[in-house]
Amino acid sequence: MTREVVLSARPQGVPQEGDFEVRETDERDLADGEVLVRNVFVSVDPYMRGRMTGVRTYVAPYEVGGPIDGGAVGRVVASKHESVAEGDWVLSQLGWCEAGVAEGKRLRRLDPALAAPSTALGALGMPGFTAWIGLTEIADVKEGETLYVSGAAGAVGSAAVQIAKLKGLHVIGSAGSDEKVEWLRSLGVEAFNYRETRAKDALADGIDVYFDNVGGDQLEAAFAALRPFGRVAACGAISRYNDQQPEPGPRNMAFIVGKRLRVQGFIVSDHFARFDDFLREVGPWVAEGKLECRETMLEGIENVPTAFAGLFRGDNTGKMLVRVGPDEPSGV
Amino acid sequence: MTREVVLSARPQGVPQEGDFEVRETDERDLADGEVLVRNVFVSVDPYMRGRMTGVRTYVAPYEVGGPIDGGAVGRVVASKHESVAEGDWVLSQLGWCEAGVAEGKRLRRLDPALAAPSTALGALGMPGFTAWIGLTEIADVKEGETLYVSGAAGAVGSAAVQIAKLKGLHVIGSAGSDEKVEWLRSLGVEAFNYRETRAKDALADGIDVYFDNVGGDQLEAAFAALRPFGRVAACGAISRYNDQQPEPGPRNMAFIVGKRLRVQGFIVSDHFARFDDFLREVGPWVAEGKLECRETMLEGIENVPTAFAGLFRGDNTGKMLVRVGPDEPSGV
Repeated sequence: MTREVVLSARPQGVPQEGDFEVRETDERDLADGEVLVRNVFVSVDPYMRGRMTGVRTYVAPYEVGGPIDGGAVGRVVASKHESVAEGDWVLSQLGWCEAGVAEGKRLRRLDPALAAPSTALGALGMPGFTAWIGLTEIADVKEGETLYVSGAAGAVGSAAVQIAKLKGLHVIGSAGSDEKVEWLRSLGVEAFNYRETRAKDALADGIDVYFDNVGGDQLEAAFAALRPFGRVAACGAISRYNDQQPEPGPRNMAFIVGKRLRVQGFIVSDHFARFDDFLREVGPWVAEGKLECRETMLEGIENVPTAFAGLFRGDNTGKMLVRVGPDEPSGV
Repeated sequence: MTREVVLSARPQGVPQEGDFEVRETDERDLADGEVLVRNVFVSVDPYMRGRMTGVRTYVAPYEVGGPIDGGAVGRVVASKHESVAEGDWVLSQLGWCEAGVAEGKRLRRLDPALAAPSTALGALGMPGFTAWIGLTEIADVKEGETLYVSGAAGAVGSAAVQIAKLKGLHVIGSAGSDEKVEWLRSLGVEAFNYRETRAKDALADGIDVYFDNVGGDQLEAAFAALRPFGRVAACGAISRYNDQQPEPGPRNMAFIVGKRLRVQGFIVSDHFARFDDFLREVGPWVAEGKLECRETMLEGIENVPTAFAGLFRGDNTGKMLVRVGPDEPSGV
């Protein structure tokens, strides 16, 4: 018997722990090609908020009373698929559960000698890949340019600022606490606390590229600060995900024409053909310790909703994860 | 003695005829390389509004009490430059005057056998080139796509809709009067009057590309209607040029991420290297009558301010021009 978290109600506004409940699940036999995985790390990610509204966007919504799939890293307990074996570390989309059955072909095997397995949910996983795609494919950053990243201490943001530093950019980042700002400064980022300093002031010397994780006021400040031919990689807008009424956009949209800005939205899943290129460039940086993989870790499946809700309170520094089991393999 | 129009006060909000005055100017002798041009057609263009505010943007502001340079087509009265001769039709930047002295190297000679000289201010000039750059370089339109053009009966818009039709797109266009809508329909455009029909309804079947001349509500409607991977060529925002307070942007900016939109502003003067490519493609369409060059023509230098103010009232169908002299050459 294992446990999973299900959606018990569609969140209104900011997600509450009460919008979820823990449920026991039964084991079942494996069919050919299937694999039983015991999760070690469960990921909570801001994009999951959109899937809870019940509106079909670029990814199917979660159903009330149903499970919440998403990124998870675990170990194989039993396998009926040729390319994974008992004991393997694997990345799955099993989501918010202690264990589950996955199709073997949908698992990515992880080599714990190359990088800590949990990084497959962070700097070497979807968030890191998102950062890399946004900087390279979308914003086309160049050495010597000035980049501004909002939500810079988050999973995507902290990968973006570090990748950009390694590519020779000058990087400005914002975050919501002094501790986060201090960490960002230790990474060589010109960081500021957006609760104390207005982005407008922090960006007064101008920027070439804005990596937008936040939307709202930060986007307006970036439009004002962008130099001619500036680019915006529009990754997300966490400040808006819980809006119950749509908020107006920036008052300075005219800069898009006047400064010939390019504002481009992207969803990382459109770019998976480039995942190996990403790993080839960023993998060594992680292995060599040039890219720091900070994590905020909670414990226990029952705390996944708290971890998720915490994303919108800014509880995490780096990647938010929940440990739902020990590293060492054992029966489910 | 000839006359010119000068800026007598910086317009507050919508430009008024009283913001300008007509002044007499003296002749002067030509220096080497200079040319005396008698204007036949003077152009009024929406972008000139921005130059009247006194704020330096991508082009120098007009000064109070000073002349208003801009596109004009005229005939050479006297030349001290080897490549233009008396009687030649030329495009200049002499602007709102009956005659003036220009550097010969800054003039473009026009061949009246190829196209009516006034088209050098419209479909074969800056507005037409703006339309072509927006469609090709910025929005990268493809045969079979659906394009929406706001301000579709204006100088840029009417070129954009026709070029797009000739390139095999399905074209929707909006304008502010039934007469304009009728004209657009005669061009094969699915046209609607935005004062009577909401863009949201007119675009309900979805669009791939939006050519934005207007900004404001139309941009919000376009964000809602754009299909995944849609593009916006942000050319201008005539609905906002006279704002005294900045207005908020679209309430649905989240679509930029969710639908992976690309919103790109552009200024045609960045693209002059491609002007010959433009003329090679669009010139024959004008010569063969496949692209209709509709003009709204006022008469007399004293009516240039009225023509200009009329742009913001939607007085023009096609290119707004003022005839300030006869076609045939004569002394100034």
